[in-house]
Amino acid sequence: MSNNIPYKIYLTEDELPRAWYNLRADMKNKPAPLLNPGTHQPMKAEELAPVFCEELIKQELDNDTPYFEIPEEVFNFYKMYRPSPLVRAYYLEKALDTPAHIYYKFEGNNTSGSHKLNSAIAQAYYAKKQGLKGVTTETGAGQWGTALSMACAYFDLDCKVYMVKVSYEQKPFRREVMRTYGASVTPSPSTSTQIGKKILEAHPGTTGSLGCAISEAVEVATSTPGYRYVLGSVLNQVLLHQSIIGLETEAALKKYDIKPDIIIGCAGGGSNLGGLIAPFMRDKIKGELDCRIIAVEPASCPSLTRGTYAYDFCDTGMVCPLAKMYTLGSNFIPSPNHAGGLRYHGMSSVLSQLRADGLLEATSAIQTDVFAAAEMFARVEGTLPAPESSHAIKAAVDEAIKCRETGEAKNIVFGLTGTGYFDMVAYQAYNDGAMSDYIPTDDEIKASVATLPKID
Amino acid sequence: MSNNIPYKIYLTEDELPRAWYNLRADMKNKPAPLLNPGTHQPMKAEELAPVFCEELIKQELDNDTPYFEIPEEVFNFYKMYRPSPLVRAYYLEKALDTPAHIYYKFEGNNTSGSHKLNSAIAQAYYAKKQGLKGVTTETGAGQWGTALSMACAYFDLDCKVYMVKVSYEQKPFRREVMRTYGASVTPSPSTSTQIGKKILEAHPGTTGSLGCAISEAVEVATSTPGYRYVLGSVLNQVLLHQSIIGLETEAALKKYDIKPDIIIGCAGGGSNLGGLIAPFMRDKIKGELDCRIIAVEPASCPSLTRGTYAYDFCDTGMVCPLAKMYTLGSNFIPSPNHAGGLRYHGMSSVLSQLRADGLLEATSAIQTDVFAAAEMFARVEGTLPAPESSHAIKAAVDEAIKCRETGEAKNIVFGLTGTGYFDMVAYQAYNDGAMSDYIPTDDEIKASVATLPKID
Repeated sequence: MSNNIPYKIYLTEDELPRAWYNLRADMKNKPAPLLNPGTHQPMKAEELAPVFCEELIKQELDNDTPYFEIPEEVFNFYKMYRPSPLVRAYYLEKALDTPAHIYYKFEGNNTSGSHKLNSAIAQAYYAKKQGLKGVTTETGAGQWGTALSMACAYFDLDCKVYMVKVSYEQKPFRREVMRTYGASVTPSPSTSTQIGKKILEAHPGTTGSLGCAISEAVEVATSTPGYRYVLGSVLNQVLLHQSIIGLETEAALKKYDIKPDIIIGCAGGGSNLGGLIAPFMRDKIKGELDCRIIAVEPASCPSLTRGTYAYDFCDTGMVCPLAKMYTLGSNFIPSPNHAGGLRYHGMSSVLSQLRADGLLEATSAIQTDVFAAAEMFARVEGTLPAPESSHAIKAAVDEAIKCRETGEAKNIVFGLTGTGYFDMVAYQAYNDGAMSDYIPTDDEIKASVATLPKID
Repeated sequence: MSNNIPYKIYLTEDELPRAWYNLRADMKNKPAPLLNPGTHQPMKAEELAPVFCEELIKQELDNDTPYFEIPEEVFNFYKMYRPSPLVRAYYLEKALDTPAHIYYKFEGNNTSGSHKLNSAIAQAYYAKKQGLKGVTTETGAGQWGTALSMACAYFDLDCKVYMVKVSYEQKPFRREVMRTYGASVTPSPSTSTQIGKKILEAHPGTTGSLGCAISEAVEVATSTPGYRYVLGSVLNQVLLHQSIIGLETEAALKKYDIKPDIIIGCAGGGSNLGGLIAPFMRDKIKGELDCRIIAVEPASCPSLTRGTYAYDFCDTGMVCPLAKMYTLGSNFIPSPNHAGGLRYHGMSSVLSQLRADGLLEATSAIQTDVFAAAEMFARVEGTLPAPESSHAIKAAVDEAIKCRETGEAKNIVFGLTGTGYFDMVAYQAYNDGAMSDYIPTDDEIKASVATLPKID
């Protein structure tokens, strides 16, 4: 063990961040506002109120306040599973024979198995504070749904989860975890909503998509008294809550005087990436940190690398506000061969703007390469990673190998967002050599983005 | 949060124990020695050598050396997932409205999902050091097999796992985790061994038992050059390695000047319990600590509470040495209704002796009560516990409720040995109200212990 840096850097409870950081406050070009899908005017708080919780709407629309204090009740919950460790990947470095120093922020040490709990508990808290009976949501791989179930159990809120059908079938145990925490789980598209019925008629046999599950959850929230809809990614509020990841990472690195050269996160809707990079991106914007920041997405759902930067619907049913983002079109559905999460057609407006401004790099990874990196990582570092997180592993490994070639001892930091314990169907396919790669053709993407709404 | 005790007490790397503690050195009545099943004489090292690794045999037979230094390579691996946190269960206390202070040592924050990794990495290390090609083992619920797979991947050893058939079927994903770490997994009884064939002939349709899987693994180890057999529980060496749990717990409690009044652990073969209690039992034996120490076992496999204290076979095939222990008879097979692990017919000789000497209390818990405690715990403390661990939760809750009635602010410490992420079939049965309880009748136990060997 070199450098006297421990394998895991933990913060004490006293060192835990007490406020979330809002990167928008420091962005020169603010993310584009949500638009009313009818009028194409920026959404006002009162228009969002039937869908979202009041406090969360304030957070969503606030591009100026840099810090939001973490409510005491949320902080108390955080103490149950936070701080998450920043791990020095000594064994991975050794296996790669690289001079690079690799660190990963590990968010998997909680029952939801991922970082999603960071925002779930905040959103459940605000829903409870508003006196609601319950919340609805969608879930893809199941991490968000599990996290929200846990958060709702803690605050005694009802929780209705619409789960993308392919994941519902691949991950029966995810459903049981959610039930154990008292949530109800419905595979999406379902016949329990108008929009679900419509989608099933148009696409019989569809394996579902996040965009479609969102539409169903929103429909139920807006048609059930005492309910609101909550979302685990994409939204500004989610990135705000997830900044806890970046703030802890920053504090842990500072404890040992480590300056990151490369920061890498996987990107689906952007919840983890936006949270991990927040304070570092702030310093980069201010010219105080010279650091590459890289988003890694699946080659099968490549919004940042092959999508169009434009206003689009957030959901398949087109009931949500329009968001400006890198998008593949709201009816884009990744191939069922695609195993992990990261299957959203668009990307957080914050991250999209940073990408458009040249502050955020983006790359994509092929599924079997991702699982190869995951398996290698598991064997040397012990932890079995989630397929989502393994996109970041793959990119970190690639950068570390470049360092081996150049001899540079760069500090590479990546987000290990979660564990793969509920992804064994995918690992089995990989272990059996039965996993196939799928990359959408240019024509497929062209057809899908042709559905983008026309905004003047 | 009262008392300024943080939610989680972590030790720094510098505070980690550097030696395992051997409780046998301080026991006034030593555990009875293993006997040769043919001669009924104490087993000598050379008789054990075809089955076990050399260094592990030394540890197995040594009743005198109080401390064994943890090898550097094992310590480095420990640093990947240790220290495990000692958690103050503030939310459980609040939910129970108890004046008791409840602490749990949480061993689930690693991919094996349990404490089993503590001994797996030690055993794999000694096997590697001896120049072996690989090891064989059995696994019940799958935690041990997973842990050993991880340890073998780390040291590049082959790993052959015989998995109790009922678990193999209930937990297909466990098998995949083991495969991901490069192990081969065979459901037991199997037709790949002589003893497996014999058992299948005698009991067609059997769902298997640990005792039977042990016999198969031993047969393969002793008939394959370069292989030895390793075991995840029961043996003295395993309790030695698992003392890391108790030593860390002791150090964490001392940091905050906390004296435990009650220590509770679940008990199958005794690996967790023996490790957790080791330093506290030492102090109790020396009269330096006034503390109740309680083993909790399933009512469906009640070796300590309803078994006989006598020499018995460690395995169904009767190929292993004889051990003196509380036992239900080596052909006792728990009802398939029984969901968790803790399905071994006997109990560690160390713990059996402590029980016989009146130093260790024992109680049993009914399955549905255990799952009710598990679900309550999950909802308030966040973590979804393993069914095994939940036996300890159940007993801790009972003691905390007694404190509520008496008004005593006792310090209750229990071992939360692992997570239940791979136990969702059992949770599903519980959630669906389809879980049944089973308690063996006196006649069943009488019939089973009638097979005990006659020792003069």
